[in-house]
Amino acid sequence: MSLKKSWLESANAPGCEFPLNNLPYGVFDAGAGARMGVAIGDCVLDVAAVDHGLDAALFADPSWNAVMAAGPEVWAALRARLMELLGNDAHRDAVSEHLVALSGVALKMPFAVSEYTDFYASRHHATNVGTIFRGAENALPPNWLSIPIGYNGRASSVVVSGSDVRRPWGQLKGPQDDAPRFAPCARFDLELELGAIVGTGSEGMVSVADADAMIFGYVLLNDWSARDIQAWEYQPLGPFQAKATATTISPWIVTAAALAPFRVDTPARERDLLPYLREPGPMLYDISLSVGLAPEGADEQIISRTNYSEMYYSAAQQLCHHTTSGCPMRTGDLLGSGTISGADQGARGSLLEMSWGGKEPITVSGTQRSFLEDGDTLTLYGAAEGDGYRIGFGACTGTVLPATPQPEWTKQESTT
Amino acid sequence: MSLKKSWLESANAPGCEFPLNNLPYGVFDAGAGARMGVAIGDCVLDVAAVDHGLDAALFADPSWNAVMAAGPEVWAALRARLMELLGNDAHRDAVSEHLVALSGVALKMPFAVSEYTDFYASRHHATNVGTIFRGAENALPPNWLSIPIGYNGRASSVVVSGSDVRRPWGQLKGPQDDAPRFAPCARFDLELELGAIVGTGSEGMVSVADADAMIFGYVLLNDWSARDIQAWEYQPLGPFQAKATATTISPWIVTAAALAPFRVDTPARERDLLPYLREPGPMLYDISLSVGLAPEGADEQIISRTNYSEMYYSAAQQLCHHTTSGCPMRTGDLLGSGTISGADQGARGSLLEMSWGGKEPITVSGTQRSFLEDGDTLTLYGAAEGDGYRIGFGACTGTVLPATPQPEWTKQESTT
Repeated sequence: MSLKKSWLESANAPGCEFPLNNLPYGVFDAGAGARMGVAIGDCVLDVAAVDHGLDAALFADPSWNAVMAAGPEVWAALRARLMELLGNDAHRDAVSEHLVALSGVALKMPFAVSEYTDFYASRHHATNVGTIFRGAENALPPNWLSIPIGYNGRASSVVVSGSDVRRPWGQLKGPQDDAPRFAPCARFDLELELGAIVGTGSEGMVSVADADAMIFGYVLLNDWSARDIQAWEYQPLGPFQAKATATTISPWIVTAAALAPFRVDTPARERDLLPYLREPGPMLYDISLSVGLAPEGADEQIISRTNYSEMYYSAAQQLCHHTTSGCPMRTGDLLGSGTISGADQGARGSLLEMSWGGKEPITVSGTQRSFLEDGDTLTLYGAAEGDGYRIGFGACTGTVLPATPQPEWTKQESTT
Repeated sequence: MSLKKSWLESANAPGCEFPLNNLPYGVFDAGAGARMGVAIGDCVLDVAAVDHGLDAALFADPSWNAVMAAGPEVWAALRARLMELLGNDAHRDAVSEHLVALSGVALKMPFAVSEYTDFYASRHHATNVGTIFRGAENALPPNWLSIPIGYNGRASSVVVSGSDVRRPWGQLKGPQDDAPRFAPCARFDLELELGAIVGTGSEGMVSVADADAMIFGYVLLNDWSARDIQAWEYQPLGPFQAKATATTISPWIVTAAALAPFRVDTPARERDLLPYLREPGPMLYDISLSVGLAPEGADEQIISRTNYSEMYYSAAQQLCHHTTSGCPMRTGDLLGSGTISGADQGARGSLLEMSWGGKEPITVSGTQRSFLEDGDTLTLYGAAEGDGYRIGFGACTGTVLPATPQPEWTKQESTT
């Protein structure tokens, strides 16, 4: 596959994230309210305003949920129509008036998140975290090579790129402390992930192949994590408040159709998977990922580079497993891949791993970091690299704000 | 507080679940589509059809979410108006035509569940389960006396009373097995809980007192649980598919206002709570609860009797804790109390506890039960008992259907 040319020249420029091959979906506000858009070159097209050939009801709300629910035939028809409108010079005049410069718009949540599930499915990440907490010999939990381990997260805390993230308060208790205390998180972290978005829902068990067909597209996802809150709360029922402050997603839904040329296999299996989890073909994607960290007032430095192909389980496998109990899935469900780490030290998807549990701080733009500091701006980048073109996601960014002042009602009374 | 009399005589009958003091909210279908209703005596009143005195937009959808979002002043106004309409004989003629016999209606989900959180907050339950799995000395996790332990459940799997529940498939691996297998759950269980419904949402941290004021009402809740799926999957990130088959709620939202006369204190604390979790007054309720089990074709037998006052943490404390990280809460969020067990052997809220991990089967209507069998009908009952009246919840019931036949794509290929 090579570059498809658009009459919009910026879409054909080398390195452009949004060529005609991409056509990712978002929601933008150019000053007149939220609208559904598709990114092309350095612009966004107001999709509802052009001759899209579909039922206008699909564009009634500024959110992609209705289109997602309409299913794969509608997804294919819309993509083909937008290719025609933006690729064929005959439509230039009619379409141009509905283009707006990306630099002048605010980007909103591209869809309403129904429920949010997060997984733990990169082997290097699970091995790193397990080694830090339990030692190298017990790094991987016994079920890890058999189950795409997942847990339910909090949909209400999912925000779009650009939203500030306030450092959380929580119950903290270190291994040496006698009792827990209520304090701001001191080990605030990122998690580099890819999010898969369920387009069409399901009732009952769904095969890996059918699960793959349900996925509308992907976003970059940063699952902000309070490691000290997590350490004290997570036994026996898993992370809860440690993961409920915010999860940031990139503003553009990159469709499964745009990523199709970049399919790659999951890695060789050390232990055979049960038949229900086996894949009929390659279901991961070759997507380069990186993490940038800019301390307040300093330049950004890339602190990690990895690839989505490092995953042990694909989103299709995760979604299939999600349905085994009969769990209904719905349009707008968001599945986080789990933190994506590669084998190398420079390919780790969390500061927990980069600083090895805080013991080996990294240097970022001249300052030391074990975990995130107030004022840090964290940005995830991602792109699939084609033959003379790239499929970009747009940045997934957020700045850490200081914790709120302590509310009076949380304070210890003086004791005698 | 004593019985408030209605002109509808069935509401004044001894033992009636729905006297004028109660006025629980539900959604019913008498054959002409779903409508918002309030239960009174042996009838349901079509609330949208009477002179309720509120904005008609609150009744546009057959769901209580809009009323809940409107806040405590609207809740109080509606309750006062319904008391007047159903209590004052002057309204009998105008109101009677909008009453329908409960026996002739289908009851639907009373509200749209935004997100579902489940807790682990009955001390007897946590102690029983901990003793079964880890022995009496390590029964309570170290954090249990400090944190209302919770995890996110799956909102899409919440169903209304009367819905059948199909035995799930899942990955199972017993302690003696070499490898996991994909099979129907063999240890399917109930969990007797009370569900608290968030009426008004929040951003940022909320005190226990403010959290209490956000709660619109309560339902009975059965969190169906696959113990064998849970045993293999739940480390390290908590239960996932074990809890995603179904959660059944009773059809009537019993309001916090109706339950106000039944407030009781949480129990004495063995370990001081952090100040943020301390309660300004009694925030539990004295609600008698019981569990009935009817094997297929046999009579129902009550297998457990307990009380909501057995909880160690109230719903207000749980909701407060839920917000500490800054987690936004929304109208329609559902918080399960966690399984409610009392101190006695006859007061256990799950078969896991009643049969002590399956080792001591109980006898139900002449048959043995360690866990649920296909065809079993399970029903939760609950009521607060006042002076000459009771505040009932309506039954919370479901029948266990056999697992679906095994799909071809989950089968082991023949190996040589």
